[in-house]
Amino acid sequence: MNAATVLPRGAAIGVLGGGQLGRMLASAAARLGFDVHVYTPQPDSPAARVAAAATVAAYDDLAALEAFAGLVDVVTFEFENVPATAVEALSRAALVRPGAPSLAASQDRLAEKRLLASLGLAVAPHAPVDGPDDLAPAYAAVGPRAILKTRRLGYDGKGQARVMAADDLAAAFTALEGAPSVLEAMIDFSCEVSAIVARDAGGAIVSYDVAENRHADGMLRESRAPARVEPRMAAEAVSGAERLAHALDHVGVLCVEYFVAADGRLIANEFAPRVHNSGHWTEAACRVSQFEQHIRAVAGWPLGDPARHADAFMVNLIGSDIDAAVAIAAAPNACLTDYGKRDAVAGRKMGHVTYLQPKG
Amino acid sequence: MNAATVLPRGAAIGVLGGGQLGRMLASAAARLGFDVHVYTPQPDSPAARVAAAATVAAYDDLAALEAFAGLVDVVTFEFENVPATAVEALSRAALVRPGAPSLAASQDRLAEKRLLASLGLAVAPHAPVDGPDDLAPAYAAVGPRAILKTRRLGYDGKGQARVMAADDLAAAFTALEGAPSVLEAMIDFSCEVSAIVARDAGGAIVSYDVAENRHADGMLRESRAPARVEPRMAAEAVSGAERLAHALDHVGVLCVEYFVAADGRLIANEFAPRVHNSGHWTEAACRVSQFEQHIRAVAGWPLGDPARHADAFMVNLIGSDIDAAVAIAAAPNACLTDYGKRDAVAGRKMGHVTYLQPKG
Repeated sequence: MNAATVLPRGAAIGVLGGGQLGRMLASAAARLGFDVHVYTPQPDSPAARVAAAATVAAYDDLAALEAFAGLVDVVTFEFENVPATAVEALSRAALVRPGAPSLAASQDRLAEKRLLASLGLAVAPHAPVDGPDDLAPAYAAVGPRAILKTRRLGYDGKGQARVMAADDLAAAFTALEGAPSVLEAMIDFSCEVSAIVARDAGGAIVSYDVAENRHADGMLRESRAPARVEPRMAAEAVSGAERLAHALDHVGVLCVEYFVAADGRLIANEFAPRVHNSGHWTEAACRVSQFEQHIRAVAGWPLGDPARHADAFMVNLIGSDIDAAVAIAAAPNACLTDYGKRDAVAGRKMGHVTYLQPKG
Repeated sequence: MNAATVLPRGAAIGVLGGGQLGRMLASAAARLGFDVHVYTPQPDSPAARVAAAATVAAYDDLAALEAFAGLVDVVTFEFENVPATAVEALSRAALVRPGAPSLAASQDRLAEKRLLASLGLAVAPHAPVDGPDDLAPAYAAVGPRAILKTRRLGYDGKGQARVMAADDLAAAFTALEGAPSVLEAMIDFSCEVSAIVARDAGGAIVSYDVAENRHADGMLRESRAPARVEPRMAAEAVSGAERLAHALDHVGVLCVEYFVAADGRLIANEFAPRVHNSGHWTEAACRVSQFEQHIRAVAGWPLGDPARHADAFMVNLIGSDIDAAVAIAAAPNACLTDYGKRDAVAGRKMGHVTYLQPKG
């Protein structure tokens, strides 16, 4: 297919990644009549169990990636940390959506911050730390309370170390194994929000209502839609995500996470060029979920209505939380999703529940 | 599992049938964390493409049926015409829900009519036609406008012949190949409605709002919820379905289709002991769809809230209707479902679209 193609029903969509996001993308694609082919190193993955086909191979197996791409019409992702060499291998055989710029920009925290700032989004004070000599000047510029984060491959709070005093710097750098990093000022925030938008290949964008998020231990715990912020601030959050999507010529769903600083400013923290945990509530509260929206975009279909028919409160079910699934399903207004992961390992996202109530 | 078991997440649910109902049941089960194993004679079936596993074998292959049942925790169906011998084979290895009484009663139009009547539901005047000698007395009792229907294996208008005059009787009987039949008076109706209820093994029942249906050429074309009938009549339709579910000790979803006769009476036409085309709107307009409701019931989970958050208008996409899928998906308020069938054969149900609007 080329960039302007409208993928016909029955066409095959390739999804890199076999976890819960791939699973929910696969189910959404199937509902629109597409076949889904999952690529994952994991046998018996959650996504493969609801997909028409699966390739089980390593993410750095370029021959397997290219062969996989040859079996589908478009390739998309459940995660952004796809190496450039893998994107190149996939691109030799299929259209890849979103494209390399979206992936590259989100893989490097420094490039990400610079891109966001260049688009007029406020970001936290930050400084690169490429080696031990950068620690002291970075801290002088950014401290006194800061977080050292690796530039690459960070997720769910991994690859991060707090720096509450200059004495913490060396230990933090060691904890990150000396990887190229960014030292960021800690933001004193009143709440966290995220904006989820979808953009199609023609540049059309639809945007969901901004969600309010609560994290703990570096993981998202709860999202609430709508966020309890002023309409002006919600509009600003959406506008920033839309500018980013246009700048990247992004095709698909994209999420920008923000802090609402104690001083009232909106600070962009990071973005994900994909469906996002803070948009899971859309499955229960919207006619067209973020998953279907992403599939529509990558398939060249018209985007759908992102309107919300209910207020939503989404709670992640982490580790043994999932043991209460049956009781949760019995609760009034609960929409349960279980990712079908075999073992409820502590700290692992096992499912989520969205509680709906009439729009307030 | 025994009758009181609550099926744990990750357990396997067997679905007999690989069509669109099996596909939507499979997707609903996966969302609750179950694995789905489909049994169908059809390779590359719509349901198998969203299920964890599939057995491709004939419906009368008793050894294959029993082996299939041995791989799952509970077996359910997308259609009711399952031979008693098959149910017996399945029951040797797994719990079967709904049970044999629900299947048996719905397989024989005469038994069905008698059961409905015994529960106080009004049915059309009818008479059995076991052989040519029964034709004239049956017509005398039921005519002048009647339909001869085979007692077994009728669906989507098949196995039916109209009798508009005594002269038509012999041709109708021949058209039905002399099969044991029922001659039913044609009902002069103002509209058709259906009631969909779900019953769990403990006898709890939840009921969806009654839908109003339009058929053409013996197939459902459109359903509208709520039906445009008096609340008293809607309540009567639901009550009849609930009485039937209790009488059969039914576990799962059950649908009763009614005529609203020109004289204002509600006449039960037939029932299906399964999810039903006239309930597809619940996927778009309810927190818990008929598919999830059925899975909850057969898994021993608590039933969910059947409340409707929007008014719904569902249109079946038959044959080449599906060619307009992309345009349909672009329409405001449209929720599209494509069953993933490879070929858009004329008269084949290929998908459906539900249009939502705020509750009136």
